[in-house]
Amino acid sequence: RTYKIASIPGDGIGIEITEQAIKVLRTIEVLFNSFTFDIDTLDWSSKRYLEQGEYIPADGWQRLRKSDAILFGAVGSPAVPDDISLWNLILPLRKKVIHSGLLYQTPLTANQLTQYINLRPIRILPGLSAPLKNCADGDLDWIFVRENSEGEYSGQGGTTHDDTPNTIANEVAVFTSVGIERTMRFAFEVARGRPRKKLTMVTKSNAQRYGMVLWDKIFYEIAKEYPDVETDKMLVDAMTVRMVLKPKTLDTIVTTNLHGDILSDLAAALAGSIGVAASSSLDPTRQNPSLFEPIHGSAPDIAGQGIANPIGTFWSTAEMLRWLGEDAAADLLMTAIQTVTASGIKTRDLGGTNDLIEVTEAVIVELEKS
Amino acid sequence: RTYKIASIPGDGIGIEITEQAIKVLRTIEVLFNSFTFDIDTLDWSSKRYLEQGEYIPADGWQRLRKSDAILFGAVGSPAVPDDISLWNLILPLRKKVIHSGLLYQTPLTANQLTQYINLRPIRILPGLSAPLKNCADGDLDWIFVRENSEGEYSGQGGTTHDDTPNTIANEVAVFTSVGIERTMRFAFEVARGRPRKKLTMVTKSNAQRYGMVLWDKIFYEIAKEYPDVETDKMLVDAMTVRMVLKPKTLDTIVTTNLHGDILSDLAAALAGSIGVAASSSLDPTRQNPSLFEPIHGSAPDIAGQGIANPIGTFWSTAEMLRWLGEDAAADLLMTAIQTVTASGIKTRDLGGTNDLIEVTEAVIVELEKS
Ligand SMILES: CC(C)[C@H](C(=O)O)[C@@H](O)C(=O)O
Ligand SMILES: CC(C)[C@H](C(=O)O)[C@@H](O)C(=O)O
Repeated sequence: RTYKIASIPGDGIGIEITEQAIKVLRTIEVLFNSFTFDIDTLDWSSKRYLEQGEYIPADGWQRLRKSDAILFGAVGSPAVPDDISLWNLILPLRKKVIHSGLLYQTPLTANQLTQYINLRPIRILPGLSAPLKNCADGDLDWIFVRENSEGEYSGQGGTTHDDTPNTIANEVAVFTSVGIERTMRFAFEVARGRPRKKLTMVTKSNAQRYGMVLWDKIFYEIAKEYPDVETDKMLVDAMTVRMVLKPKTLDTIVTTNLHGDILSDLAAALAGSIGVAASSSLDPTRQNPSLFEPIHGSAPDIAGQGIANPIGTFWSTAEMLRWLGEDAAADLLMTAIQTVTASGIKTRDLGGTNDLIEVTEAVIVELEKS
Repeated sequence: RTYKIASIPGDGIGIEITEQAIKVLRTIEVLFNSFTFDIDTLDWSSKRYLEQGEYIPADGWQRLRKSDAILFGAVGSPAVPDDISLWNLILPLRKKVIHSGLLYQTPLTANQLTQYINLRPIRILPGLSAPLKNCADGDLDWIFVRENSEGEYSGQGGTTHDDTPNTIANEVAVFTSVGIERTMRFAFEVARGRPRKKLTMVTKSNAQRYGMVLWDKIFYEIAKEYPDVETDKMLVDAMTVRMVLKPKTLDTIVTTNLHGDILSDLAAALAGSIGVAASSSLDPTRQNPSLFEPIHGSAPDIAGQGIANPIGTFWSTAEMLRWLGEDAAADLLMTAIQTVTASGIKTRDLGGTNDLIEVTEAVIVELEKS
């Protein structure tokens, strides 16, 4: 069969690393010979925004919806403030974004995609040195289920008495039982599918008394349907302490949009580098495509030099293959990645001496050995 | 002169450690002979709440306001949900808390105290092993200035369609230019007073577009008044990565209530233990007393066994002495604490074999040597 892949390289190193990911996909296609990839490359980037005034063209959504999955590089350019790319490209891909003032230049239609889960696996890859004394190579095996469509990223709130010394600015985090419940079910299924069957939920329900309390309540309700999954509940501040001091006590973690953002970045750092970590924005209903990207950004400072680390993108590509149901291909790619990191072939950000192409070729050689 | 100290031991190990802190204060009083402490012990605790239905008695505020400083142990008991002690004792001490339903049992009068700064110094004490490979004993020298009276801890928000499958729950984080500005000024003064004169501000202003943007704006405005202070701005997710991978690039950090809660707990873990860290809730106007407490909680599991770690309380006591203007006493106490940890005398939570009394006596011996 043929998988339609929308590729959005974006900006900076996003462009180079996505190119390598496509080489890897082409290699896998030949090796397996049971599926092919039809890749549609979209130029949705800050460059496009600067030239044409929008990240996503009017016919973009229609084109994107035809794909089975989206391979995303990284977006962001020194010439465009961060929040512009975020609200005009990243967040609209994840969920519906409401127009609210000048910030949103792109004419958005209703509820484009519904990637309500952000999934982030964290492991210390073999051969990578991790910062914690109590963690060695191959240690840590966490998976973060981050709610991806509501909460602190709702974009709601406002200001009163602007530009006076008495300005009041409110951020409104919106939580719904529908949004929480679908996230919990997904998280319990993930936990159930892993050897330890252990789910930790993180909120700050002692201090934030509405949405966080609803999270706790729904967590305990859904837990009844999964008696085989061991559960515990943490406050977000204490969770950071546990991640640092007792990292091996954690397995699957479910949490809100902002807490998940913070904790998964911390987790990636504790695993050694945000350069290798993968992030999947998933629509578990499969009505619309899901998106796969490295956690890292567009790194304009090293863009175009051929020294970017492609491992995060390769890991994302493996996650994409798994989501498409090609488990054998996903496993093969993960094994190849780990054989390469274990052999000491790595880019400078990981303390190695290899460049982007050398790491990619090493992964391709490993794939072809199989 | 005589300093009036209100002592609130609270629950669990709070009781034992506060007792040791008072021994230390009595030793210092004798050594210096230029000031005395008049200590008023208040039984505001979960025990009191269970017996009398309130943490803070009706005449409590008046009594508290007479003090020059508050020495706080820890609050929390397995018999009372966390949020009850938080909203009936901890938060009302920090700031005005509005009645909102059954949660708040205590009859509160208006705006009791105004401890709008939470200050948390972080260092790896000599002799303590810290979890990061790239940090040795004596490394790290951070100070967190956490906004303590607004933001995500405003207690505002609400629920609609409760107990239906369509519940909506909003958390409202309230930020004001007045609240932000006073925090920034305090933070710039702290940064200016330290050798590196470096201030990092942390928000999530790319995703949270109102209060966080106001934080950024006021930060840059106030920065103009402090050209001698080097500034930078971080997003909270990237900040956790920097704390783990480049810890020595940070010095003074200013951030919102929730982010400060998360980052300062993470910082304490990176410095080896939350058992040694101190937290000051300050009223820089000095109209009302400020409060000094360890970061750790009441640890009911080890309460009453005489094995609790008093170092966090001793560090808080030193911070209190400094706030009262007794710098020589504060310095002496910090030196004594560090001589003791360096000598290997420590409680079990730090990998030592000593008990509460042994650590206290070692600190007192060091004080008396001077
Ligand atoms: C671009 C940014 C706002 C985004 C987020 O916080 O969601 C990123 O940090 C991430 O985690 O995917
Ligand atoms: C008791 C708790 C809610 C409190 C807070 O989060 O402020 C504590 O964690 C702290 O950091 O002082």
